[in-house]
Amino acid sequence: MDLAILGAGAVGRAVAALAGEYGHRVTALADSSSASIDRNGLDVDAALARKRNSGAVGEDVPESVLEAEYDTLVEATPTTLGDAEPGYSHVVDALERDRHVVLANKGPVAERYDDVMAAAADSEGDVRFEATVGGAIPAIATLEGLGPEHVSAARGVLNGTANFILTRMATEGLAYEHVLAEAQDLGVAEADPSFDVDGTDAALKGVILANVLHDGGFTLADARIEGIEDFPVNALDVAAEDGNTIRLIGEVASGRVRVGPRLVPDNDALAVSGTMNIVQYDTEHAGRMNISGRGAGGEETASAVLADVDRLGC
Amino acid sequence: MDLAILGAGAVGRAVAALAGEYGHRVTALADSSSASIDRNGLDVDAALARKRNSGAVGEDVPESVLEAEYDTLVEATPTTLGDAEPGYSHVVDALERDRHVVLANKGPVAERYDDVMAAAADSEGDVRFEATVGGAIPAIATLEGLGPEHVSAARGVLNGTANFILTRMATEGLAYEHVLAEAQDLGVAEADPSFDVDGTDAALKGVILANVLHDGGFTLADARIEGIEDFPVNALDVAAEDGNTIRLIGEVASGRVRVGPRLVPDNDALAVSGTMNIVQYDTEHAGRMNISGRGAGGEETASAVLADVDRLGC
Repeated sequence: MDLAILGAGAVGRAVAALAGEYGHRVTALADSSSASIDRNGLDVDAALARKRNSGAVGEDVPESVLEAEYDTLVEATPTTLGDAEPGYSHVVDALERDRHVVLANKGPVAERYDDVMAAAADSEGDVRFEATVGGAIPAIATLEGLGPEHVSAARGVLNGTANFILTRMATEGLAYEHVLAEAQDLGVAEADPSFDVDGTDAALKGVILANVLHDGGFTLADARIEGIEDFPVNALDVAAEDGNTIRLIGEVASGRVRVGPRLVPDNDALAVSGTMNIVQYDTEHAGRMNISGRGAGGEETASAVLADVDRLGC
Repeated sequence: MDLAILGAGAVGRAVAALAGEYGHRVTALADSSSASIDRNGLDVDAALARKRNSGAVGEDVPESVLEAEYDTLVEATPTTLGDAEPGYSHVVDALERDRHVVLANKGPVAERYDDVMAAAADSEGDVRFEATVGGAIPAIATLEGLGPEHVSAARGVLNGTANFILTRMATEGLAYEHVLAEAQDLGVAEADPSFDVDGTDAALKGVILANVLHDGGFTLADARIEGIEDFPVNALDVAAEDGNTIRLIGEVASGRVRVGPRLVPDNDALAVSGTMNIVQYDTEHAGRMNISGRGAGGEETASAVLADVDRLGC
């Protein structure tokens, strides 16, 4: 397939770099200020080298990507809240041209799921968004396979940065601020980690799962959110005395989305360590199902994007 | 879709009972000695009541199911080794009629995978076999989604009976024979548990995973198998001293299939408890992925069969 990629952050760059190995061709690639377009297939290595050297992937304007020749638009621009722009308009533009869309950007399917699905219903193109929940983990494909109507609840550890911080606090007995600084040094936490530690990122993923489970109707405004900022290390010590630990759990159950620190037994499936993510489904006929793996990373998330590309048309 | 179900054990009966809820119709159902056929859709409740009361689902001969009207044959007769008959002939018969086949029977895809795939290549029908590995766990669909060419190894706890026995031995300090008797009382182990405890069942699942990973070429004869019969409880005690435990692990790596008791850290993803199963994939671009859930049970395995039915045609 021919891919047009909007966004040249870690995920967009990794999709571009891996596309050939997955049997696809990149005909357009844009960062926030420029684009490189070639209907016969880009020289991806050259475009990424330009990005490293000059900060720009090419000399076209980013918007020109939407008018390029492609089968599938990969929307990997940064997640935005509220109207989810400009990602939302990119998605609708591609669908109106009867092209497929694969999202790594959480905004459109968290904040405007119903609008996106309405646009997809009027299009020959499909929309997929595996990479928006749990990074490499096939959370959405598994839920589709189980059949959302046979799943009563979804929950999980949906943010690796918060999980890394809680894990280190518990194992080392160190205070929140200290571990956050360490995580920033290691590149596990961003300079501004707000969305990771205040629960917003996990809530966006919970909202997306809720939309798949309930066929739409949820936005971030529907989520009850509590984060781990300044979480007291002694609460972890107290939990440990009884063989428990604390995890930031996002949960969709009884038609509600909630995110907050929860007590979890040490040997529970949800007690994953470090930057690992896990998604758990309660099913009607098959009990509880767990999927765990790497929840972030450019190449990991790109592999979920490219798995989605392979699922298009099914 | 119209389903013809061969086999009325726990899995076949559960597929028949749940088919309507999944939007399908059962037009034929056979046990080992009889069949019930209705091209307008069976009264499944009545057929299962006859089975409970008289031991026979109906008054037709089992073979008549193959000539019935159906879209998908569900092959849920008992797994047999070697020539995998009669399951293998059922599969080929349905494919020659250009019908789809969904297997719960491990034999044909463990012992004659290449022959089955050759028959599928000549047919308008597809073959799927999610239920043969890990019960409810979507092990095959996940592997297909990752792309077998991007997965370097697969391993897991693939037999719930053996895992239940090892878990109870470790937590209670009881001897193998004692725990096996307990498992038989609870219905977790069969009267003849040979294939569960000698590693054969786990090896069949490992062989099936190897066939998907390597596009065929494996049979049970290619597996190196060690079971847990008379496994010494003191080996579990020694492991526990260092924070480890023992699990019967099936592994496909470097083109080989091996099953045997392995040392696993207590907090490792592979250290699932009781009758749980887990499948783990090492991927090229997304690290390690784990899927765990119920590895057996009629309804659980039926849900995997019905998920396969929904995947047909993709």
